[in-house]
Amino acid sequence: MDYESIFEQAIAALKNEKRYRVFTELGRHAGDFPRATRFLDDGTTQDITIWCSNDYLGMGQHPDVLKAIKDATDQFGAGAGGTRNISGNTRLICELERELADLHGKESALVFTSGFVSNDATLSTLGKLLPGCVILSDELNHASMIDGVRHSGCEKRIFRHNDVQDLEDKLKTIDPSRPKVIAFESVYSMDGDISPIKEFCDLADKYNAMTYLDEVHAVGLYGPCGGGVAEREGLMHRIDIIEGTLGKAFGVVGGFITASKNIVDAIRSYASGFIFTTTLSPVMSAGALASVRHLKSSQVERDQHQERAATLKSLLTEAGLPVLPSVTHIVPLMVYDAELCKQASDMLLDDYGLYIQPINYPTVARGQERLRITPSPFHDDAMMAELVSALKNVWSRLDLRQAA
Amino acid sequence: MDYESIFEQAIAALKNEKRYRVFTELGRHAGDFPRATRFLDDGTTQDITIWCSNDYLGMGQHPDVLKAIKDATDQFGAGAGGTRNISGNTRLICELERELADLHGKESALVFTSGFVSNDATLSTLGKLLPGCVILSDELNHASMIDGVRHSGCEKRIFRHNDVQDLEDKLKTIDPSRPKVIAFESVYSMDGDISPIKEFCDLADKYNAMTYLDEVHAVGLYGPCGGGVAEREGLMHRIDIIEGTLGKAFGVVGGFITASKNIVDAIRSYASGFIFTTTLSPVMSAGALASVRHLKSSQVERDQHQERAATLKSLLTEAGLPVLPSVTHIVPLMVYDAELCKQASDMLLDDYGLYIQPINYPTVARGQERLRITPSPFHDDAMMAELVSALKNVWSRLDLRQAA
Ligand SMILES: Cc1ncc(COP(=O)(O)O)c(C=O)c1O
Ligand SMILES: Cc1ncc(COP(=O)(O)O)c(C=O)c1O
Repeated sequence: MDYESIFEQAIAALKNEKRYRVFTELGRHAGDFPRATRFLDDGTTQDITIWCSNDYLGMGQHPDVLKAIKDATDQFGAGAGGTRNISGNTRLICELERELADLHGKESALVFTSGFVSNDATLSTLGKLLPGCVILSDELNHASMIDGVRHSGCEKRIFRHNDVQDLEDKLKTIDPSRPKVIAFESVYSMDGDISPIKEFCDLADKYNAMTYLDEVHAVGLYGPCGGGVAEREGLMHRIDIIEGTLGKAFGVVGGFITASKNIVDAIRSYASGFIFTTTLSPVMSAGALASVRHLKSSQVERDQHQERAATLKSLLTEAGLPVLPSVTHIVPLMVYDAELCKQASDMLLDDYGLYIQPINYPTVARGQERLRITPSPFHDDAMMAELVSALKNVWSRLDLRQAA
Repeated sequence: MDYESIFEQAIAALKNEKRYRVFTELGRHAGDFPRATRFLDDGTTQDITIWCSNDYLGMGQHPDVLKAIKDATDQFGAGAGGTRNISGNTRLICELERELADLHGKESALVFTSGFVSNDATLSTLGKLLPGCVILSDELNHASMIDGVRHSGCEKRIFRHNDVQDLEDKLKTIDPSRPKVIAFESVYSMDGDISPIKEFCDLADKYNAMTYLDEVHAVGLYGPCGGGVAEREGLMHRIDIIEGTLGKAFGVVGGFITASKNIVDAIRSYASGFIFTTTLSPVMSAGALASVRHLKSSQVERDQHQERAATLKSLLTEAGLPVLPSVTHIVPLMVYDAELCKQASDMLLDDYGLYIQPINYPTVARGQERLRITPSPFHDDAMMAELVSALKNVWSRLDLRQAA
């Protein structure tokens, strides 16, 4: 048995498919985001502008967040030193949970090491706690939700993306006495579209299902307090479990759920991925807490963010570039080909110092390859002009598809 | 369908079994570890000494680590802002990976958000990449390895704990043409015993199996550079994949694997739990890097740690208390009953200000409940005298079992 060659072949397969990933080595500049340094293999560096960060609002460099992190480091030290149960239950993580529960108008919250783990651990445990449960899952749900559904061992039904009728058709066929969970996202991060939350909640009521909503790409960004799309639409109370991340708009790291006291207590008590792992560092909890608190009361970042995204979309449209008509802050620019997408990205980075990672399969379907642009409040008009000009050049150099 | 009552019942079941967990809310004191503040529900606080932290060496308060965290915060900001592939690949995490690969004498390393995720993601992906693979797993392996094995979808064979003969009996029965992985830990953290690494490697050679070793409770602590038990025993080169954590002896947070270039590249390219999640913060990477580097060249913490553990074990033995004869830094004090174990722990905390979390099922088998004590270099003689005296009192107040 030649194990090495099996792994080598697995890698070669990705290279053949043109979807082998090469990571760009970066150093961000706190206080000067979206500027960063790129470290090249030959030992040289390049000054670049990041256009694909999920630190959507630049909160990762907010002075309050940085101060909270440094103060917590001085006061509490680096790590939590244990699992939540065994000496790792720091006051800061408890405060963060209270703040998150309040943000979503729920009784309780639970913080995990990441948004990925919060989805995987919660969905898998939910399925195990509800005997005979069926999970109805949107076909475009994130990998972490797919893993959670799979690990639950439940029967699953995949409904067409954001399709109310298809979801109802599926619900109708399930024995009314079986527990059901509808799992979906608010903002789908690759197309920037939004799910019909109200209609899904209506169906949940009609068929007596629980609702599980991933607001990872919406928390901090939508709603008067940054509670997400469900907050904006006055629907938070109709969702049983709201899941989110502390690593994108909040600019730090970690994930969470909020729900009723009983649901949170059950997940807390049964989820292996929550129980048997070192707690999020108090330092990161402090940073996240500062970020959540700031965005709860400050609307200015959200307004600027929406304005910047709208401006970039109209600039790209004017330039005849094939931007997808997203209804959110996400600006997908379509290339429709894995190899060309990678070439466009490399050219932008090498020749123009503009960093936009290509998005290929399996993150999007084959043939749907794109450059996913995420303008923040810190991407100013001059940067946008520079970007649009570079994109026009690259589009003509590579003879890419224009807008229809 | 009354969902709430299902969750309520799940919680009630734990309460009936006396294994409902109540977390102790803590604030550690950087620079004064193991002292901490306990926050009580009534709003008051209590000064306590932590005796159950997995920050085994107190590296969570090491000045180099704290400085690295604060400097990285100033320089790079709070979070990574993206997945490894999409703008989150910071220079610091790449440096950390180079350092970890070097620590274990391997070609490559890969950092995950936690040790839990590193086990789950790696084992599950390994199983998927090796067609027809059988995973042989020690019966006392950690929950994260159990999850990884389960999620791999592979056939699994559970062998008796640390039992070379039983492992060989199982290996013999497996078709030689099938890929095989032997998954085990070096230090088992609840009993403090060590696996027969060499004998397992011999079997791996004989039956052409891969070896996967969890050194979570050994990295930083054993071996001349803190490479773990396999380093101490000169066996690192015989292990295919060494897994570890940055959250225990290294005092920060995060997990990793080290292995050949091809294995690491395959896991990097296929593991969902690695790919689709925000990268460990550069701040945490900086802290971990400082900690790994310090412990690579400094032996003094490891020596003090072993001395402290040996001293405590002999003090407890002299006092007639039922300490398990662990061969490592872990000092398990047996209670053999879930409820009494909780009572002893509560009494130690409330009446003596000494915090040792009770360890109950499912972390240990029923009837094997214990107080798991983890003395660090910062637990001095006076603290040990205080602890032994309090334990003697509690043992007589609750009429607990003495040493045989
Ligand atoms: C929809 C969605 N859910 C969950 C996650 C995972 O969150 P985190 O990055 O905090 O692990 C992501 C992205 O990473 C995501 O896009
Ligand atoms: C043996 C073992 N492996 C893995 C882990 C998980 O490591 P982490 O705490 O970094 O998630 C733990 C404990 O938490 C453990 O005891």
